[in-house]
Amino acid sequence: MSEERREAGPVIVLVAPQLGENIGMAARAMANFGLRELRIVAPRDGWPNPAADAASAGAVHVLEAATLHATTAEAVGDLAFVLATTARARGQMKRVYGPADAVPELRQRAGEGQRVGILFGPERTGLENDDVALADGILTFPVEPRFASLNLAQAVLLVAYEWGRGGPLPFAAEPGTPPAPRVALLSMFDYLEAALDQAGFYPPDKRPPMARNMRDMFLRMDMTEQDVRTLRGAIRALVEGRMRRKA
Amino acid sequence: MSEERREAGPVIVLVAPQLGENIGMAARAMANFGLRELRIVAPRDGWPNPAADAASAGAVHVLEAATLHATTAEAVGDLAFVLATTARARGQMKRVYGPADAVPELRQRAGEGQRVGILFGPERTGLENDDVALADGILTFPVEPRFASLNLAQAVLLVAYEWGRGGPLPFAAEPGTPPAPRVALLSMFDYLEAALDQAGFYPPDKRPPMARNMRDMFLRMDMTEQDVRTLRGAIRALVEGRMRRKA
Repeated sequence: MSEERREAGPVIVLVAPQLGENIGMAARAMANFGLRELRIVAPRDGWPNPAADAASAGAVHVLEAATLHATTAEAVGDLAFVLATTARARGQMKRVYGPADAVPELRQRAGEGQRVGILFGPERTGLENDDVALADGILTFPVEPRFASLNLAQAVLLVAYEWGRGGPLPFAAEPGTPPAPRVALLSMFDYLEAALDQAGFYPPDKRPPMARNMRDMFLRMDMTEQDVRTLRGAIRALVEGRMRRKA
Repeated sequence: MSEERREAGPVIVLVAPQLGENIGMAARAMANFGLRELRIVAPRDGWPNPAADAASAGAVHVLEAATLHATTAEAVGDLAFVLATTARARGQMKRVYGPADAVPELRQRAGEGQRVGILFGPERTGLENDDVALADGILTFPVEPRFASLNLAQAVLLVAYEWGRGGPLPFAAEPGTPPAPRVALLSMFDYLEAALDQAGFYPPDKRPPMARNMRDMFLRMDMTEQDVRTLRGAIRALVEGRMRRKA
């Protein structure tokens, strides 16, 4: 899965990015979710850019493999399907995708061997209309309309995340010991209820429902055998501590 | 939808954040997707922090409403369900969620009136085990195992994005004019094919399949009436330009 994801992932095209920090953060976000092909069109501060390296948190393999282009048209020349990110309507008759609809389309095309890519505009102004016109469709994000401006690297992250969203988590729950067999639980409940009887815990007419409720509480813990042993030991310590204090 | 999302969204708890920039970027990411309750535990550089304001890109409503706490336990005191973000296994017997499984659980609990929250650790070290122990479950991200370290604000963004993922896009495709009726298309095809006949375009034995293929190409354009008028005008200009050159 991991290898395939990296091979087929969309090319990220940053058009006229202003801040090296954002280029570096975008590279880091790509690396987090296995995208690795970055293209940079006419970066304001030139290329390579030390601020990008510093912000990449070690995603140097992405920055070192990045290619530099003079125009957006040149940067998308070998791509078969291109989406342009924008936070506002552009009056262009293109299909509008959210990340969740875009990724299945990108993945299907990539699976057919098409090269696919996504354009991101400069921080302050976004893509120019002529750059949007190069694309097959528009990609936007389900943001709050009153606070719609995403940071450049954050927008790249959302695309990378959505691409990797179905992938495996880096670790799973602790395997632990298997769940306790019911007989161990029932034996612990009997032990606890006998101890509570001795301690005078139950009002005489309330014992059956109170005991059932407490069994319910413990059943919701989904205990392992080790948990049952630990809890039984804790109950015994309380009982024997009380006995010792009495003695 | 928008109001409801903001009301019910998870509380974001930043534990011992180091950089004001990251606090500000986290607030911006929250505002982008309609989360608004931020709690900050023992920030390294004090609070308020001018670097946070500068990086928030105007999400001051989130920063001004943020509350400051001395301990993580205090910050989660009123919450009924808490997840702890971590990039590595901690040997604690907790359920491990990805964002895509966590949000349905958070949304269900929030819908029942429970207050829910998510803990994020300091940039360099992540959450301490004692902070993780305060949580009901662990939240991690489907990152590439070899490049697993997410920036703090990026991690907050992914939670906020996943919370808002089902929401509406800020704009839709241009409504445009309605699709062209088939009769307008067929009339344009006839006009084009007659012009191509006159121009000697078709090899005699290939006309029927070539004409069908070209009709297929134009049908894939899913043209509006305006598109048909524009294209018909362009064909006429080519024909008449040729006539004029001949004259």
